[in-house]
Amino acid sequence: MYKADIKVMDCTVRDGGLMNKWQFSDDFVRGVYKGCVEAGVDYMEIGYKSSESAFSRDEVGPWKFCDDKDLRRVVGDNDTSLKLSAMADIGRIDPADIPPANESLIDMMRVACYCHQVDKAIWLAEHCMDKGYEVTINLMAVSKVNEADLDEALADLAKSRVPIIYVVDSFGSLYCESIEKLVKKYAAAMPGKELGIHAHNNMQLAMSNTVTSLINGVTMLDATLLGMGRGAGNCPIEILIAFLKNPKYRLLPLLDAIQTHVKPWQQKIDWGYHIPYLITGAMNEHPRSAMKWMDSEQKDDFVSFMKEMHDYELLE
Amino acid sequence: MYKADIKVMDCTVRDGGLMNKWQFSDDFVRGVYKGCVEAGVDYMEIGYKSSESAFSRDEVGPWKFCDDKDLRRVVGDNDTSLKLSAMADIGRIDPADIPPANESLIDMMRVACYCHQVDKAIWLAEHCMDKGYEVTINLMAVSKVNEADLDEALADLAKSRVPIIYVVDSFGSLYCESIEKLVKKYAAAMPGKELGIHAHNNMQLAMSNTVTSLINGVTMLDATLLGMGRGAGNCPIEILIAFLKNPKYRLLPLLDAIQTHVKPWQQKIDWGYHIPYLITGAMNEHPRSAMKWMDSEQKDDFVSFMKEMHDYELLE
Repeated sequence: MYKADIKVMDCTVRDGGLMNKWQFSDDFVRGVYKGCVEAGVDYMEIGYKSSESAFSRDEVGPWKFCDDKDLRRVVGDNDTSLKLSAMADIGRIDPADIPPANESLIDMMRVACYCHQVDKAIWLAEHCMDKGYEVTINLMAVSKVNEADLDEALADLAKSRVPIIYVVDSFGSLYCESIEKLVKKYAAAMPGKELGIHAHNNMQLAMSNTVTSLINGVTMLDATLLGMGRGAGNCPIEILIAFLKNPKYRLLPLLDAIQTHVKPWQQKIDWGYHIPYLITGAMNEHPRSAMKWMDSEQKDDFVSFMKEMHDYELLE
Repeated sequence: MYKADIKVMDCTVRDGGLMNKWQFSDDFVRGVYKGCVEAGVDYMEIGYKSSESAFSRDEVGPWKFCDDKDLRRVVGDNDTSLKLSAMADIGRIDPADIPPANESLIDMMRVACYCHQVDKAIWLAEHCMDKGYEVTINLMAVSKVNEADLDEALADLAKSRVPIIYVVDSFGSLYCESIEKLVKKYAAAMPGKELGIHAHNNMQLAMSNTVTSLINGVTMLDATLLGMGRGAGNCPIEILIAFLKNPKYRLLPLLDAIQTHVKPWQQKIDWGYHIPYLITGAMNEHPRSAMKWMDSEQKDDFVSFMKEMHDYELLE
């Protein structure tokens, strides 16, 4: 499936860090970085851009802050064609703490927001643009938003200067028809904007939803090594690259990073397809209850988890 | 997605048995059976129908033969609405060893064949029909068949009395567009036939390909508990049932069977998404080399496996 304008973004450290509070060694982050560079991946999201006042370094690792001195220790001057991205969570970053782009190794700031925060997101994203960054806005949890609210948010985004807007399947509850409908809605509401897709794998549909988005004109594709990410994780980047067969990408360096750095983490944290994540996904719910269950000693008692979910009759 | 005429077939014992030579305890098979009955699943494929002369009972378990006395030990008289199916491999079953349907607990015989065997498959399937069975023909490995050969096979099937024909993604190499194209081709070539889908999960597309097939008119849907099956396994039946939200099915009994019987097998055999299976799937190759690799001590050395594949440049 040759598309000249595809851009693949690796989110392993940023989304995977949601499972271990970004407590990755420099060696791990360097391994992911090296894999992305050699594979020809376009962007690597290396963490969150947060203010030091919002979190304690005793609790979270350096990739929750993406301070330039931490970045530089791992990627040097990043004298490569790989662009680095950081995600900004509204309310967790003081705009004054964002350096001008020409003083930072970060190339792109992605602003994640819920529909009701879209005005704040636009303000922050345009602030970052004015500082010289590439920017996107990633509209989260849209599978639970009513159509009128979503339409209003999209109309606001259409009027903004932000050039790239993401379809985000936060709960992993969407499938080909719902993804296609959303992508077409976004494209119609925001002519001229580039679109992205960020999928979760609760129903083993992250890869498929990414491909469906691509077929429908989305060009920014998020994925992670071995699908590492919150809960059921994301679209596995190695599947996406193997599928695309695009001459600008190479699979082997990603496999190397997986076997050396990512796979060992499977012994420590339970991302990926597990039944509790399926249940929240199929119910279109936030994965937090499933994540809590997976952290308990009853994690393999799927029947009890389903019974505990308040409205399990939905699926029963 | 309400469709009145959907039928779901659980293939856990039959396809999962390819990973352990059908060495399942009676308790396991009974657990799967009970789960299917209580969940309202339509069919359970309980194994292969093979002649005793083709395999040794010292090597393979009873579900390679599906002898009625073994069946009866597990399901009694099967006084339920669940129908039992067995798969017949051409050349491994002497037609004389197939009892009349009214003397057997088996309700359906599925004949698996390659395109070049389609005449033999039609003969065997019609032989089973004459003995009173429901039948299907499952045309394997079509992703490697040239279009003229496939068209000829479909034309032969169209002329047969066999009422149900399966689209089979043997190598897990297909995706939404290729699946849609195949389903439409099958429907056009064989008007009046019912269609089925049997997917493999090498690229994490088994669930998605099953849904795409359903959207395009396929009504017989194969799936297995926790995706248990050869290599990367199949469409996970618990995802399919959770997705369908069809009032005739219940999810909870399937989760019970998974946690009690199927999940413990994950400690013993490596079905499901693993990088070697991804590589054969993306290359549209039979998974046998990946299965061999997964049985070796180097199973987590994905880079070496990819280099060893003869024409790995395809993906590199």
